[in-house]
Amino acid sequence: MPKARTQKPKAPKPMFARVVFIGIGLIGSSMARAMRRAGIAGTYVACDMRPKALKTALKLKVVDEATKDAATAVAGADLVVIATPVGTNGAIAKTIAPHLKKGAIVTDVGSVKRTVIDAVAPHLPKDVYFVPAHPIAGTEHSGPESGFAELFENRWCILTPMKRGSGKAAAKVAEVWRKMGARVDSMDPDHHDMVLAITSHLPHLIAYTIVGTATDLSGDLKREVIKYSASGFRDFTRIAASDPIMWRDVFLNNREAVLEILQRFTEDLTAMQRAIRKGDGLTLQDHFTRTRTIRRSIIDAKQA
Amino acid sequence: MPKARTQKPKAPKPMFARVVFIGIGLIGSSMARAMRRAGIAGTYVACDMRPKALKTALKLKVVDEATKDAATAVAGADLVVIATPVGTNGAIAKTIAPHLKKGAIVTDVGSVKRTVIDAVAPHLPKDVYFVPAHPIAGTEHSGPESGFAELFENRWCILTPMKRGSGKAAAKVAEVWRKMGARVDSMDPDHHDMVLAITSHLPHLIAYTIVGTATDLSGDLKREVIKYSASGFRDFTRIAASDPIMWRDVFLNNREAVLEILQRFTEDLTAMQRAIRKGDGLTLQDHFTRTRTIRRSIIDAKQA
Repeated sequence: MPKARTQKPKAPKPMFARVVFIGIGLIGSSMARAMRRAGIAGTYVACDMRPKALKTALKLKVVDEATKDAATAVAGADLVVIATPVGTNGAIAKTIAPHLKKGAIVTDVGSVKRTVIDAVAPHLPKDVYFVPAHPIAGTEHSGPESGFAELFENRWCILTPMKRGSGKAAAKVAEVWRKMGARVDSMDPDHHDMVLAITSHLPHLIAYTIVGTATDLSGDLKREVIKYSASGFRDFTRIAASDPIMWRDVFLNNREAVLEILQRFTEDLTAMQRAIRKGDGLTLQDHFTRTRTIRRSIIDAKQA
Repeated sequence: MPKARTQKPKAPKPMFARVVFIGIGLIGSSMARAMRRAGIAGTYVACDMRPKALKTALKLKVVDEATKDAATAVAGADLVVIATPVGTNGAIAKTIAPHLKKGAIVTDVGSVKRTVIDAVAPHLPKDVYFVPAHPIAGTEHSGPESGFAELFENRWCILTPMKRGSGKAAAKVAEVWRKMGARVDSMDPDHHDMVLAITSHLPHLIAYTIVGTATDLSGDLKREVIKYSASGFRDFTRIAASDPIMWRDVFLNNREAVLEILQRFTEDLTAMQRAIRKGDGLTLQDHFTRTRTIRRSIIDAKQA
């Protein structure tokens, strides 16, 4: 029966013909992998200033094209993802702006939103949509070889959409994140920066600091700290192994919120210090009991 | 061939006839399980002031006998393990001392060694051996139902043996720990307390503090902190869910070492704060780069 020999059903048309990643590190390469798995784009392009990263991304078939030249990369692109340390985003926007096609969507993945918006938005043409985004996901590893398609599964991606008529573009970006397995939320950028200062930036700063304190110890003591790190310290070193440039930029770009929450933390730490010095067991026990409930809430929210 | 119908080979004689755990929580019950698996004792006994813990330990067959009465428990015991919050160890030693048999070994599992030695040793009769020990292992869960036999596998147990002729007893305790899967090390008690202040006590204090800072936030912000906790904060909440009374006692009993390392940490945090306030990216990047190497060392030491 010749009728049974029909062709394979045609794959549904992808959402975008050409998606470009400016920066193909852990996040950019994980997005490329996750988008490819979901069939979101026709062609995936990497643009990075590091020749080695481009070579790796091509070799691992994370992308189809790779170039150091941002103008070449974004020409004809439907979606441009800026996935570099936040301090570079303004300059990147300025560079790519003249080469963006009408109706293109520009998005980012930065851990800080207010300064990124202020640095990027003014450069972009009126007929291009900007949808700031921040996926709450990552590992302590860097580079395109560290990425994986499952990184965003069941993790949150926060959009802080611009008011300027980008409703449809924001909906498209949200759809992309959902197809990559993420849950999508929307937030005011300043509020985002305060929430992240507490949940992410301060914990990283503290982990970097305590690991630094241990790094400064004398040789013997340092060796023992490494040997016996399983007793709590180890968990901090994982966090403190995150990308140094990315984190430098986070602190420089979310200064006020970080300093505000750091101030509260320091006050609380001083109170703990005083309780230890005075031998005030009641205060310590009360504090340590209250903190257990928040762990319970995180387990209940399925984020543990 | 009747000769083939021999009896099962007799199990080798256990090291101890009767092992008693004063305190049958996470650590005590994990030790009982691990010892049973290794065939270390004939009879396992739990002594605890909490009737529910005793009931659970019996029901789960973690121990063979359970009693609230320490005198009854330790009578005829070859090995007594004190596995309660360190603040109780002196009083326990005083209570059990008159009932210990000649040649019995008393050991403990406390995260602090100097104050435990000073509180316990004076009470014990001269013909009883005291071998202070500290297994570097644990979870954020408490109670006998949370224990498991594998808790100590490939983890360190630090002995801080007394000089007073306890060589053979220390060797026996070391053998027990090795049979439970641990690696054994030996250290001066004051040095132990400083190493642990850095690797364990300070990290716990900081985790408890930052989680407390978040607990004090207003309702909306707190809900969002829980929702987006995967960005770093979550790792701290796990640590800050550890047993409050155990940790209260750790801080009260290792006060000087904790305050000393806390002072260094606070100085380093102030330097980070200044770098953020001044926008000093070079200092931040340099610091964040140095901390990566210690993570590498921990991975190399197979403690990651």
